[in-house]
Amino acid sequence: MIVLYTDFGPGGPYVGQLHALLAQQAPGIAVIDLFHDLPRHDIRAAAYLLPAYTQGFPPGTVHVCVVDPGVGSERRALLVKADHRWYVGPDNGLFHVLARRARELECFEILWRPRQLSASFHGRDLFAPVAAQLVRGLVPASAPVAMTVPVPDWPEDLPQVLYIDHFGNAITGLRADRMVKNARLQIGDTTLTCARTFSETGAGAGFWYENSNGLAEIAINQGRASAKFNIAVGDPVRVS
Amino acid sequence: MIVLYTDFGPGGPYVGQLHALLAQQAPGIAVIDLFHDLPRHDIRAAAYLLPAYTQGFPPGTVHVCVVDPGVGSERRALLVKADHRWYVGPDNGLFHVLARRARELECFEILWRPRQLSASFHGRDLFAPVAAQLVRGLVPASAPVAMTVPVPDWPEDLPQVLYIDHFGNAITGLRADRMVKNARLQIGDTTLTCARTFSETGAGAGFWYENSNGLAEIAINQGRASAKFNIAVGDPVRVS
Amino acid sequence: MIVLYTDFGPGGPYVGQLHALLAQQAPGIAVIDLFHDLPRHDIRAAAYLLPAYTQGFPPGTVHVCVVDPGVGSERRALLVKADHRWYVGPDNGLFHVLARRARELECFEILWRPRQLSASFHGRDLFAPVAAQLVRGLVPASAPVAMTVPVPDWPEDLPQVLYIDHFGNAITGLRADRMVKNARLQIGDTTLTCARTFSETGAGAGFWYENSNGLAEIAINQGRASAKFNIAVGDPVRVS
Repeated sequence: MIVLYTDFGPGGPYVGQLHALLAQQAPGIAVIDLFHDLPRHDIRAAAYLLPAYTQGFPPGTVHVCVVDPGVGSERRALLVKADHRWYVGPDNGLFHVLARRARELECFEILWRPRQLSASFHGRDLFAPVAAQLVRGLVPASAPVAMTVPVPDWPEDLPQVLYIDHFGNAITGLRADRMVKNARLQIGDTTLTCARTFSETGAGAGFWYENSNGLAEIAINQGRASAKFNIAVGDPVRVS
Repeated sequence: MIVLYTDFGPGGPYVGQLHALLAQQAPGIAVIDLFHDLPRHDIRAAAYLLPAYTQGFPPGTVHVCVVDPGVGSERRALLVKADHRWYVGPDNGLFHVLARRARELECFEILWRPRQLSASFHGRDLFAPVAAQLVRGLVPASAPVAMTVPVPDWPEDLPQVLYIDHFGNAITGLRADRMVKNARLQIGDTTLTCARTFSETGAGAGFWYENSNGLAEIAINQGRASAKFNIAVGDPVRVS
Repeated sequence: MIVLYTDFGPGGPYVGQLHALLAQQAPGIAVIDLFHDLPRHDIRAAAYLLPAYTQGFPPGTVHVCVVDPGVGSERRALLVKADHRWYVGPDNGLFHVLARRARELECFEILWRPRQLSASFHGRDLFAPVAAQLVRGLVPASAPVAMTVPVPDWPEDLPQVLYIDHFGNAITGLRADRMVKNARLQIGDTTLTCARTFSETGAGAGFWYENSNGLAEIAINQGRASAKFNIAVGDPVRVS
């Protein structure tokens, strides 16, 4: 299985071009559009979401991860093997949180190059072809390397809004199983208590809960938390 | 074939998570994204659109239908067999119109539960795995049940705007074959006559017509009816 | 492979209905969503983007191209064979640029009709079934015909913004390999020089470059060109 994880947007030709390439180079393999609306160019948000949203995939899954504002620069191309799954993408911090939490980790620089490499679309020209090789059991030319570490260092969990979903729920970079049940989450002037599920709270009431991927998420039963609490991606949250 | 019918939004990650699960539990089966932008939490709109937009699918098709504001509450999970097609989703009225119009109908409560059931994402954890079982010829543990009937009762056809499409056309809950050809449709202050097709009317002219799925739809030739007539989902229409 | 190229929008249900039909009539064939957010009803923009974005597909690929404001009128349905690839869609100029640039070209009017043809959705009822026949090696009933030529004539390259992508980059109808490297591109009051890649310029600096499909594209490193330069689809550009 190949999983796509990008900030390319849900429209447009880029996602389709990845699929077209994979249909040719990895025919018959399921290709999953996991995220294409990751916050644009926000490497850190994508890095903290990555382990939460890819933890359930089977061994051997190949993830093509592209949040890559530095495409065309000298940043390296990485091939990461973490807990029996492959991740392909730029060496810009995108795999930093994943690597830190992995039990088993190997990291390689991708040396293989296609015959034609555009300056602006390595997703299509480099990362997707490498993914196609991996699912077919081939390992492209590569060399062991140490992943670039963000400077200054990133925290273990990120107390910030990383993504606002279609329902207006605000997903944070905090793992709920690291928080106590009666923790309060503060965002702006609002302090929220924990609920197990939406229907536990009254309509219109704000709360935080452990979402279906293990992250602390701010929501309103039958309402839009992002609108009511005026939340944007990047807003800090505080645990108390 | 598995058909997805949700209000999850066209962006990530929920739709991708359904696909990922189905790729594992029902490999090789076509999975169709029919609707993911149904009006959020609007059970009634989704209920009236459902029979119109799923009538053409072949016998044996399994529909995963999730407009589920009560997820995590005590609402039951349903398995509906209507005219040789399967429908899986919450017992909240979503299947009420479909059931009323079906020639053959069976309804079951789903008793099967996965090992891990999140409180907020039964689409991924319960309904999709049940769909995967059904397309593989298995019927999950379930018991005959009477579907919950909305109170107060819903009308035979719904004189309301249910969905506004990408072109600004407003799809109503009225079946066109129940209306006379010279019927007028009133929305707000505007009264519209019927046309067979867009090109029959002048550019910029508003009209209603029988859309390609049998519902009365308000449109403007080469324009946006929703903008010109200031139409929103939920607006009432009147037939005269 | 079947490639979809439409202005149907990324939300439902039209794209899903195409996929549902193709899953039944061309099972096992990869279907690629290349564009579904082409500028609405903008035949000319779609016509100039088409050769750039479909040039890389393998011989035998069938493209279903639907930007069709005249659906339901007397406009003909076309089947075009250009450089060993098939294109199916309306005879409204959509294939004009492709045809002009093709080395080998055949053009047919599609005479085949389905049993049920809606007045408003030929994509589903006519073009997709024809595509399904073509990928299965069948050629539907058709007759050689001369494609309708736009009046007044369209230029060789179109000095206009055709599409604004998810990153706010503005794709023009100018082929970069026809331009000199030190050409300047003027849009509104702004004059831009050429860069090879994003990282070549400073953050926030505007430039034009040859995009990954060969068209001249206006961008800002880590910014949104469409917002900063106030660019909309249809805006003219000037080369100097």
